[in-house]
Amino acid sequence: MPILKAVSEKKAKGKVKKIYEEIKKTRKINIIPNFWKTIANDPITLERTWKSLQQVMQKKYLDTLTKELIYIAVSMTNSCEYCIRSHSLSAKKKGMTDNMLKELIAVVAMANETNRLVESHQVEIDSFLK
Amino acid sequence: MPILKAVSEKKAKGKVKKIYEEIKKTRKINIIPNFWKTIANDPITLERTWKSLQQVMQKKYLDTLTKELIYIAVSMTNSCEYCIRSHSLSAKKKGMTDNMLKELIAVVAMANETNRLVESHQVEIDSFLK
Amino acid sequence: MPILKAVSEKKAKGKVKKIYEEIKKTRKINIIPNFWKTIANDPITLERTWKSLQQVMQKKYLDTLTKELIYIAVSMTNSCEYCIRSHSLSAKKKGMTDNMLKELIAVVAMANETNRLVESHQVEIDSFLK
Amino acid sequence: MPILKAVSEKKAKGKVKKIYEEIKKTRKINIIPNFWKTIANDPITLERTWKSLQQVMQKKYLDTLTKELIYIAVSMTNSCEYCIRSHSLSAKKKGMTDNMLKELIAVVAMANETNRLVESHQVEIDSFLK
Amino acid sequence: MPILKAVSEKKAKGKVKKIYEEIKKTRKINIIPNFWKTIANDPITLERTWKSLQQVMQKKYLDTLTKELIYIAVSMTNSCEYCIRSHSLSAKKKGMTDNMLKELIAVVAMANETNRLVESHQVEIDSFLK
Amino acid sequence: MPILKAVSEKKAKGKVKKIYEEIKKTRKINIIPNFWKTIANDPITLERTWKSLQQVMQKKYLDTLTKELIYIAVSMTNSCEYCIRSHSLSAKKKGMTDNMLKELIAVVAMANETNRLVESHQVEIDSFLK
Repeated sequence: MPILKAVSEKKAKGKVKKIYEEIKKTRKINIIPNFWKTIANDPITLERTWKSLQQVMQKKYLDTLTKELIYIAVSMTNSCEYCIRSHSLSAKKKGMTDNMLKELIAVVAMANETNRLVESHQVEIDSFLK
Repeated sequence: MPILKAVSEKKAKGKVKKIYEEIKKTRKINIIPNFWKTIANDPITLERTWKSLQQVMQKKYLDTLTKELIYIAVSMTNSCEYCIRSHSLSAKKKGMTDNMLKELIAVVAMANETNRLVESHQVEIDSFLK
Repeated sequence: MPILKAVSEKKAKGKVKKIYEEIKKTRKINIIPNFWKTIANDPITLERTWKSLQQVMQKKYLDTLTKELIYIAVSMTNSCEYCIRSHSLSAKKKGMTDNMLKELIAVVAMANETNRLVESHQVEIDSFLK
Repeated sequence: MPILKAVSEKKAKGKVKKIYEEIKKTRKINIIPNFWKTIANDPITLERTWKSLQQVMQKKYLDTLTKELIYIAVSMTNSCEYCIRSHSLSAKKKGMTDNMLKELIAVVAMANETNRLVESHQVEIDSFLK
Repeated sequence: MPILKAVSEKKAKGKVKKIYEEIKKTRKINIIPNFWKTIANDPITLERTWKSLQQVMQKKYLDTLTKELIYIAVSMTNSCEYCIRSHSLSAKKKGMTDNMLKELIAVVAMANETNRLVESHQVEIDSFLK
Repeated sequence: MPILKAVSEKKAKGKVKKIYEEIKKTRKINIIPNFWKTIANDPITLERTWKSLQQVMQKKYLDTLTKELIYIAVSMTNSCEYCIRSHSLSAKKKGMTDNMLKELIAVVAMANETNRLVESHQVEIDSFLK
């Protein structure tokens, strides 16, 4: 159970209702995921997060699939199950195959290993990296 | 200062010397970065890490630049300065521009924010995500 | 299921029984939460943790509600579900409203975002911060 | 050294220049901290972060000092030195004394200990917490 | 549910089948744990991880029980439930008693507390530690 | 620079002075490490931490060297440089050789990798682990 009760589509009013409509239209989905319904308890956070995510995740110098892969990599490192699942779904819609997902996981796991090798040894920054 | 003294190229022998040669040839570099010189204290870890990284980072279903971006995203989430710097350099060699780096950072930061929104609220997994 | 079986109130003896009584009296509760019943497997850890928490969480320069909010903020950053839930309950007893909780979550999420912005960029410490 | 060169006040133009002015006026400071000058490389991130922080950190149900304490608690848990230092300065301006800071640190450290006790034991959620 | 369907022993072929046999023989177990069946989706990761783990976890300068205790300590710090449970089982087979487990947990929790005390205070490295 | 000025041995009074004496005697050292001098700003935290550490780190079911190795493993996973350095020194005094340290690092790094493999895949708990 979440800490705060999700705001159902039926009970959504004003700003929340408007953003729910935008999410469904933009994402081409029929039901609002629990993430949005939960943070909707705080309409200001809902609005800011929705606008920020749209701005950050839009295609510009990096394409939208690459951005989803990066999002998943962070979520895996933070062990956020909901985030891994929801962004994996988004990534699949944008073309991520199971083979790509397997390679993504291998890179994430390996990076976590070498990050600790570096920190355990307190490796000194090479002069060419400064 | 590192916890263990780095193994200089001059003092490298046997397996370590051989891998140093391979690293310089494969990466087209003239000096061995401190990461390799430090983990070379344990030649088995050096060999395993070098082979594993080559296997994991090779182009297959994901291209090598995308893999570097994922590596940087993990390193940023773990706050590993050496790793951020060294993989940013590798990524630049593979085509990452400053504009791409800026977008990468924006995605990493945003993902860290929404990961905490999800965990703070203990958002329930949607049935379509199970 | 926990890793070690919880020590029920019925089976509690000696030091454990005594601390269970203290917890119920001090906290004005009728049942011992699973946290205490689980760490009671190690009576020394139970005693040290109970005494330390009372010392750390008492009102002195910061009031007890503020201390609970800080506790929740750490638990959210560490994604500890049990800790988020139990300290949210304690905070509510001390006056935390749902509106305060929503703001707390917004601050925690935002701090996690800017923490990563700083670490991703390896922002230099300003001279006025040294 | 940061990953991207900070945007000096002299070189700031357009949106960046405008936000620099706002920051100095709102915060009543004469020099722009490195955090803002570094993220200014990406004017969109600069603007979004500045606006979001103002929205999140304003007094509403929690006062601004409590919000700073929460910010520091997250930054300490994430070991972000720059963030600890800059938000400690902000908190001091809002009334945080050294005695409050010491208590804050004690709570943060203790919360990190009990978070691990809970996770190590995989403590079951009590029915009254669900 | 896992993100990718586990590879059952029945469906295992080629390299996967061969490694499954090795795991059962080496570990003296009759059923393949879900960890191996899940990463078997990527046979290269399965093989690399199996070989690496055998190399890293073998008795040399540290005995195998001490290595398992270290593995559990990392898994507890990262809150990885599956890892805590599976390595606790391995450790028990190698001689870990409940009393040893309780002490392990106490050390892990305490280390997490003092790690934050150090980082919160940004304690300076003593000259004798450099 | 630390956030709060360290309490020098010269300026130590009362409880702080007494604990400084105990630390020097028990640890057989001539100078108080910065860790203790920094947390001494809060004499209650100094006393609680010193007593707790002595209790937790004493030989009982696990020997003191094993406990130091666990402490280092946690500190490496949390990337706490001061903690890695100071507990490596303590471990060396208790018999840790460079070869043991190298193996410790290899286990810590590998555990961090498989922890992420498990979390990335959201591996289901085997029924024999429940």
